[in-house]
Amino acid sequence: MAAALTHNAYGKSQVRLTRVTRHADRHDLKELSVAIQLEGDFARSYLDGDNRQVIATDTMKNTVYVLAKTLGVTDIESFGLALARHFLQEYPQVTRAAIELDEQLWQRIHPHAFVGGGGEMRSGVVTGTREACRVESGLSGLLVLKTADSAFAGFVRDRYTTLPETSDRIFATMVTAAWTYASKSADWDACHRLIRSTLLDAFAAHKSLGVQQTLFAMGEAALAACPHIDEIRLEMPNKHRILVNLQPFGLDNANEVFVATDEPFGLISGTVRRA
Amino acid sequence: MAAALTHNAYGKSQVRLTRVTRHADRHDLKELSVAIQLEGDFARSYLDGDNRQVIATDTMKNTVYVLAKTLGVTDIESFGLALARHFLQEYPQVTRAAIELDEQLWQRIHPHAFVGGGGEMRSGVVTGTREACRVESGLSGLLVLKTADSAFAGFVRDRYTTLPETSDRIFATMVTAAWTYASKSADWDACHRLIRSTLLDAFAAHKSLGVQQTLFAMGEAALAACPHIDEIRLEMPNKHRILVNLQPFGLDNANEVFVATDEPFGLISGTVRRA
Amino acid sequence: MAAALTHNAYGKSQVRLTRVTRHADRHDLKELSVAIQLEGDFARSYLDGDNRQVIATDTMKNTVYVLAKTLGVTDIESFGLALARHFLQEYPQVTRAAIELDEQLWQRIHPHAFVGGGGEMRSGVVTGTREACRVESGLSGLLVLKTADSAFAGFVRDRYTTLPETSDRIFATMVTAAWTYASKSADWDACHRLIRSTLLDAFAAHKSLGVQQTLFAMGEAALAACPHIDEIRLEMPNKHRILVNLQPFGLDNANEVFVATDEPFGLISGTVRRA
Amino acid sequence: MAAALTHNAYGKSQVRLTRVTRHADRHDLKELSVAIQLEGDFARSYLDGDNRQVIATDTMKNTVYVLAKTLGVTDIESFGLALARHFLQEYPQVTRAAIELDEQLWQRIHPHAFVGGGGEMRSGVVTGTREACRVESGLSGLLVLKTADSAFAGFVRDRYTTLPETSDRIFATMVTAAWTYASKSADWDACHRLIRSTLLDAFAAHKSLGVQQTLFAMGEAALAACPHIDEIRLEMPNKHRILVNLQPFGLDNANEVFVATDEPFGLISGTVRRA
Repeated sequence: MAAALTHNAYGKSQVRLTRVTRHADRHDLKELSVAIQLEGDFARSYLDGDNRQVIATDTMKNTVYVLAKTLGVTDIESFGLALARHFLQEYPQVTRAAIELDEQLWQRIHPHAFVGGGGEMRSGVVTGTREACRVESGLSGLLVLKTADSAFAGFVRDRYTTLPETSDRIFATMVTAAWTYASKSADWDACHRLIRSTLLDAFAAHKSLGVQQTLFAMGEAALAACPHIDEIRLEMPNKHRILVNLQPFGLDNANEVFVATDEPFGLISGTVRRA
Repeated sequence: MAAALTHNAYGKSQVRLTRVTRHADRHDLKELSVAIQLEGDFARSYLDGDNRQVIATDTMKNTVYVLAKTLGVTDIESFGLALARHFLQEYPQVTRAAIELDEQLWQRIHPHAFVGGGGEMRSGVVTGTREACRVESGLSGLLVLKTADSAFAGFVRDRYTTLPETSDRIFATMVTAAWTYASKSADWDACHRLIRSTLLDAFAAHKSLGVQQTLFAMGEAALAACPHIDEIRLEMPNKHRILVNLQPFGLDNANEVFVATDEPFGLISGTVRRA
Repeated sequence: MAAALTHNAYGKSQVRLTRVTRHADRHDLKELSVAIQLEGDFARSYLDGDNRQVIATDTMKNTVYVLAKTLGVTDIESFGLALARHFLQEYPQVTRAAIELDEQLWQRIHPHAFVGGGGEMRSGVVTGTREACRVESGLSGLLVLKTADSAFAGFVRDRYTTLPETSDRIFATMVTAAWTYASKSADWDACHRLIRSTLLDAFAAHKSLGVQQTLFAMGEAALAACPHIDEIRLEMPNKHRILVNLQPFGLDNANEVFVATDEPFGLISGTVRRA
Repeated sequence: MAAALTHNAYGKSQVRLTRVTRHADRHDLKELSVAIQLEGDFARSYLDGDNRQVIATDTMKNTVYVLAKTLGVTDIESFGLALARHFLQEYPQVTRAAIELDEQLWQRIHPHAFVGGGGEMRSGVVTGTREACRVESGLSGLLVLKTADSAFAGFVRDRYTTLPETSDRIFATMVTAAWTYASKSADWDACHRLIRSTLLDAFAAHKSLGVQQTLFAMGEAALAACPHIDEIRLEMPNKHRILVNLQPFGLDNANEVFVATDEPFGLISGTVRRA
């Protein structure tokens, strides 16, 4: 039997980097987790165990720390671009480098002390080839909930349907968003702040007829707010809060008492592009 | 052979409650996870399968929702007290009720929309018997980090020791704190806010010679700030940030580039009491 | 500004199903988690909140239970095919249904009692359109480790490289594998058993010069063993066991004492196809 | 204000150890996670930052690896005893050493290859003072399920009760067990195997009238089987499988289709002692 290797990639994941920049009056702090995946002329390592083209994943890890030292980390997008370009320039056998970066957020409470920003991550993916680099920025773990202006009605009713219609439910979700930039460079930090606050505002203000509609409204608002991006992808799991039935106890439940459930959950996604 | 049942307890864990209070101009939101454990005259259910004294754990869950509706949830301490008293009053076979409550924190972004507060929890344990109820309040998941004013030196050096002394390291920890109140009632919310901010300030300002010393300083500050509590217990895992060795690359590392590691980790605890 | 919806999909995730088949002399047990994603004519729900085409994700959940009752669950592949076909046949607005199924494994210890099979999952993805259905089967969470016959040497050495070469290391990984069937139907259970045991044997017997080479050898062996499949994709994180340096304590470490680390980790993937 | 330190302890957690013993014809493998907590004369480090009595937690970690090399790891109990005694003998300031050990289980598939044993852990706690050492052994993560011989009826019915009685339900739990030995030494491995298999057999064979009753029956059986232990503590969360209501779809559900839920869950514990 003959077998062929039709695709391959490898790299280092969860390279955790803490970078402190020590100013006279304050310290700045960046904490990231970096994942690197390389593609290129690596087939011989799979087929024959010939590792001569292989950059050890340990070397990739070292490179993250060396570049963090020499270049600093101002934002994940610039640092990701530097890493992608490094692997392409240093190693002719690499044809494609994908750098994923997740930044854990910290809030300053003191010139050199910080409190953790919770589960939300700022994220980025830089994908580079010898022809071009593509920057995708985003966020994940942004937990939001609204207690009004959320309905769900008018959907298909058939013999498999038991869900009642509702004009007033809790809408909770953990937003994952990723957007691509039209230009090669932008003020990554300012764009991120603007898009994040736009997503929050749109979520809060929207009169929702369904998760799908709110998702599109959020994406549309982000495109309108930030001219530097041309596409945004949103994923919004429906983190259900289910009304507790208090009738067995002779009590009304006027949308006051709910149970949060983690599973099963609805999962809604959509991509919105500037038309 | 004869076997005796020397201890028993049972209850319901992870009862998740979302309680919305609907004011004309805004909604208030509380989200908790409640765990109930009862002790009392339940041995026959273990020994003979005689369940006549057994309050089903499903009934405990129902009770959480019924009391949430009828009493509301102003703070976890009051709600925990109400639950403990309910089980003791309603069921003569119960001699001890322990109610653990963890509150997920939300920040308001709109009159009826909220953004998640991250991994930090406000926590409480109410332990009631027919004689007395005891309220313990606390917090967990409070992630803090400082990039200066942290040393560790002068410890035992022997043939098992390889750790170098340091006068300047990153100090990161996830604080768990629990305190007990001297009085039966207090302004639970105000005390919690005060103690939390005092712990943060003490962490940030302390010139640390070791995690142990900072832990004591934080506990001491909390007792000084809040006269209603007489004891505080702190647990502070050392969430190590390890200096990356950049010498193989011909680079200095002036406390700028670190790797975060999750394991192994130092774990330091202490209880501080008003003397 | 104009914004266009360029992609959308939605569905229900983590629908947990326990299916008992009650024979006179024994019970059979299947436990799965099912995720459903539908694509089709759903744009109006995003753009206008018009939900008339929307099948509620709650209805999808109900459907899982109804089909589990009426059809039974013999294997995840057949059940996934039934679900995919159901959504395509029942709802003209659906153009594509993707059904992911993860089966938790149980070992029988008694005619109607079972012990959990650990973290390994049997997995499948059925993707159906009106033209065709595609069955992908696989496994995840298969943790394996070998203490001999694993080397890693001859890789690129440059100024970023510090990893020493080794002729004898521990090789531990958690295998994720997914394969596609050449034919529309097969004895799914028999194929799964055969491929799983072939992957284990190949891992154990291989004289590894690197994770890449072992991955290819495992894929090649699976294709050789099972003529019904024509492609297999493998993902093998390198779950590092790092030799502890005992020299500071005057001790040799002849590959006897290691520390397991979870991060960072090498991540190697490859797709092997019948040539 | 005066504040006193009323309790303190510190140590290293999640020290992960892989120990290979290399025989001519096969390799043996042990993988553990060790947590060490020391108590003693450490108050000055808390009160004054005086670390002269402090054994760095990094040194504790080193000690695990040194003892693993010099003594080997035959079973977690012996290794835990060696560690506890080491800290007490080496450091006069230590008055109490608690060593927790969790062993990840591996199954041999080859003279030097292994497959992971899943989520079940073999566990032990050795607590030593200058006067005595106490060995507690146990297991955790033992997932079991039975589809027959499980009822729950006759419990308290009041205005808070909605749970129906049942004579036939699924009983699933994840057993945590811990037992103490009457003697200072025993064949730890043989005892563990015997107690584990006795617990499994008792679970499978028991005609259960409630989780409480099965818990006691399992404990009683373990004490009867192994004369070396005099007490066993069991904790058994009720991992609910809830019957799906298929009446809306015109279908009966004769205990065939269930949904597994993770929360809320009943939690039952008990301690059984030789009378």
